[in-house]
Amino acid sequence: MMIVMKDGATDQEIREVVDMIHSAGGENHMSRGEFKTIIGAIGDREKISQMPFEALSGVEKVIPIMKPYKLVSRQFKPESTIVEIGEAKLGSDQFVMIAGPCAIESEEQLIDAAREAKRLGVKILRGGAFKPRTSPYSFQGMGEEGLKLLALAREETGLPVVSEVMDPRHVEMVAGYVDMLQIGARNMQNFLLLKEIGLQPKPVLLKRGLSNTIEEMMMAAEYIVREGNKSVVLCERGIRTFETATRNTLDLSAVPMAKGNCHLPMIVDPSHATGNVKIIPALTKAAMAVGADGVMIEMHPSPKTALCDGEQSLDFSTFEHLMTDLKNLAPALGRLM
Amino acid sequence: MMIVMKDGATDQEIREVVDMIHSAGGENHMSRGEFKTIIGAIGDREKISQMPFEALSGVEKVIPIMKPYKLVSRQFKPESTIVEIGEAKLGSDQFVMIAGPCAIESEEQLIDAAREAKRLGVKILRGGAFKPRTSPYSFQGMGEEGLKLLALAREETGLPVVSEVMDPRHVEMVAGYVDMLQIGARNMQNFLLLKEIGLQPKPVLLKRGLSNTIEEMMMAAEYIVREGNKSVVLCERGIRTFETATRNTLDLSAVPMAKGNCHLPMIVDPSHATGNVKIIPALTKAAMAVGADGVMIEMHPSPKTALCDGEQSLDFSTFEHLMTDLKNLAPALGRLM
Amino acid sequence: MMIVMKDGATDQEIREVVDMIHSAGGENHMSRGEFKTIIGAIGDREKISQMPFEALSGVEKVIPIMKPYKLVSRQFKPESTIVEIGEAKLGSDQFVMIAGPCAIESEEQLIDAAREAKRLGVKILRGGAFKPRTSPYSFQGMGEEGLKLLALAREETGLPVVSEVMDPRHVEMVAGYVDMLQIGARNMQNFLLLKEIGLQPKPVLLKRGLSNTIEEMMMAAEYIVREGNKSVVLCERGIRTFETATRNTLDLSAVPMAKGNCHLPMIVDPSHATGNVKIIPALTKAAMAVGADGVMIEMHPSPKTALCDGEQSLDFSTFEHLMTDLKNLAPALGRLM
Amino acid sequence: MMIVMKDGATDQEIREVVDMIHSAGGENHMSRGEFKTIIGAIGDREKISQMPFEALSGVEKVIPIMKPYKLVSRQFKPESTIVEIGEAKLGSDQFVMIAGPCAIESEEQLIDAAREAKRLGVKILRGGAFKPRTSPYSFQGMGEEGLKLLALAREETGLPVVSEVMDPRHVEMVAGYVDMLQIGARNMQNFLLLKEIGLQPKPVLLKRGLSNTIEEMMMAAEYIVREGNKSVVLCERGIRTFETATRNTLDLSAVPMAKGNCHLPMIVDPSHATGNVKIIPALTKAAMAVGADGVMIEMHPSPKTALCDGEQSLDFSTFEHLMTDLKNLAPALGRLM
Repeated sequence: MMIVMKDGATDQEIREVVDMIHSAGGENHMSRGEFKTIIGAIGDREKISQMPFEALSGVEKVIPIMKPYKLVSRQFKPESTIVEIGEAKLGSDQFVMIAGPCAIESEEQLIDAAREAKRLGVKILRGGAFKPRTSPYSFQGMGEEGLKLLALAREETGLPVVSEVMDPRHVEMVAGYVDMLQIGARNMQNFLLLKEIGLQPKPVLLKRGLSNTIEEMMMAAEYIVREGNKSVVLCERGIRTFETATRNTLDLSAVPMAKGNCHLPMIVDPSHATGNVKIIPALTKAAMAVGADGVMIEMHPSPKTALCDGEQSLDFSTFEHLMTDLKNLAPALGRLM
Repeated sequence: MMIVMKDGATDQEIREVVDMIHSAGGENHMSRGEFKTIIGAIGDREKISQMPFEALSGVEKVIPIMKPYKLVSRQFKPESTIVEIGEAKLGSDQFVMIAGPCAIESEEQLIDAAREAKRLGVKILRGGAFKPRTSPYSFQGMGEEGLKLLALAREETGLPVVSEVMDPRHVEMVAGYVDMLQIGARNMQNFLLLKEIGLQPKPVLLKRGLSNTIEEMMMAAEYIVREGNKSVVLCERGIRTFETATRNTLDLSAVPMAKGNCHLPMIVDPSHATGNVKIIPALTKAAMAVGADGVMIEMHPSPKTALCDGEQSLDFSTFEHLMTDLKNLAPALGRLM
Repeated sequence: MMIVMKDGATDQEIREVVDMIHSAGGENHMSRGEFKTIIGAIGDREKISQMPFEALSGVEKVIPIMKPYKLVSRQFKPESTIVEIGEAKLGSDQFVMIAGPCAIESEEQLIDAAREAKRLGVKILRGGAFKPRTSPYSFQGMGEEGLKLLALAREETGLPVVSEVMDPRHVEMVAGYVDMLQIGARNMQNFLLLKEIGLQPKPVLLKRGLSNTIEEMMMAAEYIVREGNKSVVLCERGIRTFETATRNTLDLSAVPMAKGNCHLPMIVDPSHATGNVKIIPALTKAAMAVGADGVMIEMHPSPKTALCDGEQSLDFSTFEHLMTDLKNLAPALGRLM
Repeated sequence: MMIVMKDGATDQEIREVVDMIHSAGGENHMSRGEFKTIIGAIGDREKISQMPFEALSGVEKVIPIMKPYKLVSRQFKPESTIVEIGEAKLGSDQFVMIAGPCAIESEEQLIDAAREAKRLGVKILRGGAFKPRTSPYSFQGMGEEGLKLLALAREETGLPVVSEVMDPRHVEMVAGYVDMLQIGARNMQNFLLLKEIGLQPKPVLLKRGLSNTIEEMMMAAEYIVREGNKSVVLCERGIRTFETATRNTLDLSAVPMAKGNCHLPMIVDPSHATGNVKIIPALTKAAMAVGADGVMIEMHPSPKTALCDGEQSLDFSTFEHLMTDLKNLAPALGRLM
């Protein structure tokens, strides 16, 4: 951590900074330029970063140098983590397809989607039972009944299943039905939920918050890993910007940026990011090209009758066409499908 | 709701839209221009807004016309809601000062702050016991011990107290200690927490999410009010933008925009929005001038030793100076303090 | 254009809207719901869109229905425009590589880069002579001397050249040296420059502004095309968001969104968008996968001594490696290189 | 400037950084922590900041320490600059009202507005002759004819006038008619226009770009001041964010932030920022409370017939009411009107 002093900071003000560093058990390193004095604080990063240097009168700004996460960084563990779920090996050479309906609506809808997914080479089935909805008047999901259908779909097809958990009180119950627990974008900084999910062993799919930086996503993963659960998969799903042509702005740069610094697998969700069936296939191919470990796609036997996000769900024919394209593309990018 | 058809939409495609409107019990209203056909859907707003019109092949886009919230709108209840907590009357002519330390750290720190707050005319004491922190390595708050200190501070000073609740499992416990429950920015769309808090009777302070629109804030309030709790106070606390000179960008326009459409009181939190002691007083005055019903300010007996956000906490002398300025300003703006 | 009236709008207020439509030579189409009256305005789009409906007292909001651009839309010209420059055919099956140094620094630097570009299959050489720099103290480019070197590089290699023009007074002069004129991101809404460049016949590379929507980019293209110059190539180069890990956020969704509505070719500039050599190759592959018609990449014989943006310039070895990857990838995406 | 080395940077890599510092005539200052080596570069700021440290293989990131502007900083000139135009003293205790129509439409319209402005205590009359419009089909302003009417209005009322210049070729001509030249938000980084305007002596009103940081605004001012023109007034007019309830998000924090670091006066334009007549008065009062040196407001004798931005123009009665409110408010904020 570097503490930049104001121009003309007094010796007394500099001493206050040095004292604060010492009180955190650290050492200081002084650099006096013509205009600026800069003080480096060396020592226990966690203790030092807690100190309110910016509240001292002579301090202009504080610049963190070390990355604020540890367990999920490649500095801590250089080799990539591989998360295995059924036949899926997220973080390996495999490009993993996760697909299924946005919301579970009925046995028929889910089983239809599951069979088609299985037939086309999907590795994990998704289906929402608890749906976070902006409006209290929107369909909120089937709840535990939906999870039972998901378990049934797994029995029918052999596909492992992933579903979102929104409430720390539900973690154990949801984990009883699914193979992977999803933390949605709105809950990426629901820290008590992160801790709770970190205490159970099933793999976690952690979606980036709409207004969260890549670094904050890694800090959220750190919350989970720190509790003991090392099977975390990151997911880029678009951030909020001024552009309104797409629902959110898919930040594909986040994939190589995150994977460069963090050993966890990372996938992309182009369905929620764009909210637009017409461009989802193009963005899916781009996700593979940019180095993602997989994608999560919404598909539905009949998007026109979907209870949730029908406008962003691929029908079976479009989905099959996309799968064919991806299988053609994979070898040129060194990926297996 | 207006459904705009693509250029050259066929009669069959138009009929699909009309059928979907009818299936939701609505009526249609057709407008055929030279290039565009536009279909108005009239009827039960909630049912119609659930239909996936955008999944139909002939549809270019769907434009909502009605506001998506109801109970919190001035259309539903034109007169302003007044939320009373002790001597505070949020939503009235009174400009309500809420102040106190970011985090509760010790009995001494909290009681000191509470006495100073009381002495200077603060109406509600704030203090964080459960702290949402980006890093798992940051101080997470004193938890229930902190709430006990808060209750003690109320006994000492007579000031009502507000504190954040982050977990639906804690709502009852926190409500046992405080006079007002705060939903933090990161939890504004934690819908299960909103529902839980809507089921208990204590007033709620609902902070706007960093990446949430004004309308989404009203939808979040709608979640609470719909469960039966009508005592909701909105809080603007800055949104995330590209500007990095301040921690967030305080959106003061949100105050007259929200209060024009919604009958709930609305306050401003310049401390978290700016993260900068130097400009908090100026923004506080601006909040009063723009029509806010109060502000929430962080103050601390010794910002330099604060365990949390010391750089944005006013010391007693700066805080007293600000209170004096506000009392001078209030009459010119028709506010009581 | 749909005019949504306030709840309880009076007959007089409705009449004012109808009169304003008539005064623009248009016709109205009335839709009265239980709560809302909505008035469609049909007729000459340009005249109607000029009317200040929102200034009328009974109007809640005005919703445009038609796209605000015409000449660049696929509605006006469904087939894709192909812009030919030397061997480059932008908008065809060809994936066009534009590459070269950020700024022209010397004859040796430019000729070196040009020869390497030529050797590796680049189709257009880029080089900045006039550099828009945030700081007046940064290197501002070699000006006309740089353009002379660019012309020399073309002679040496046969490659056509592109360079930025920033000032309407320079358009003729710059056009005298180059084969394609670039409008930089900061000038995307410099409307007088757009008009000036629209009056000369050389192809134009129009970069998206950092805070401009896709639709605004098309309006900027419309300014150029309307003056007579139909050879416009759009360029996505990142938008400004809250994320600071990359310089800007590359919005790859913009490519299929723009190309779906607009017949002009569109390329991607991952160098400026990311400002990070480490991730430029991955984003370049993603640009091809998402359907871009080419990319513009900064490369330099010696990035460590570059006078401008060395941190985002590929050295020759990295660039060659990228070209090999792209040539392997192209067939799987149906592109020629 | 601090250069942060990658973990495990070699001695050779460190030496490359040191050599680059020396080649710019600077000195280095080494700080070796357990994990990180950080190298401070001390010396000629402008030369050092040009070096491409980030292109060196051992460098993780480069952190600027010094502010990148000089002439406009309080470090260079601590006392506030006062820009005098007629009776207006921008930067003094006076709160300066600038008002008038968005676009000049006719003699009658402008003279009407000018007389009303004069009567109510406005200090500078505004009126647009060259209008930057997103669409080429929108009214582009009356051009020089408009400026002649502006000069006429000055004759009639004695009020000094301000108008926008968009093209470096027009600077001399526009300066021949007006008392203050405005650089619009879209041209804040039109660096050749900034230089041209810096070469003439009339005061300049520099509006913040929609996607520009406060620091970039100061750099733009630096471009003007560096050419010799020291009479620059900054203007906050809203930035682009995800919020769509207002046209832009007015960033009032920018006022105390900018004025703390920069000696130039700063005003606020709530008309363009919000685009909404209903909330302009509230934001104007907030601008005064936050410490702005004035505001620029659009008013029009008949907003309903305005050719440009009628929805954000105050009619005379609303404007008069606002002026009364401001005069009541000014004493409590220590401002003169």
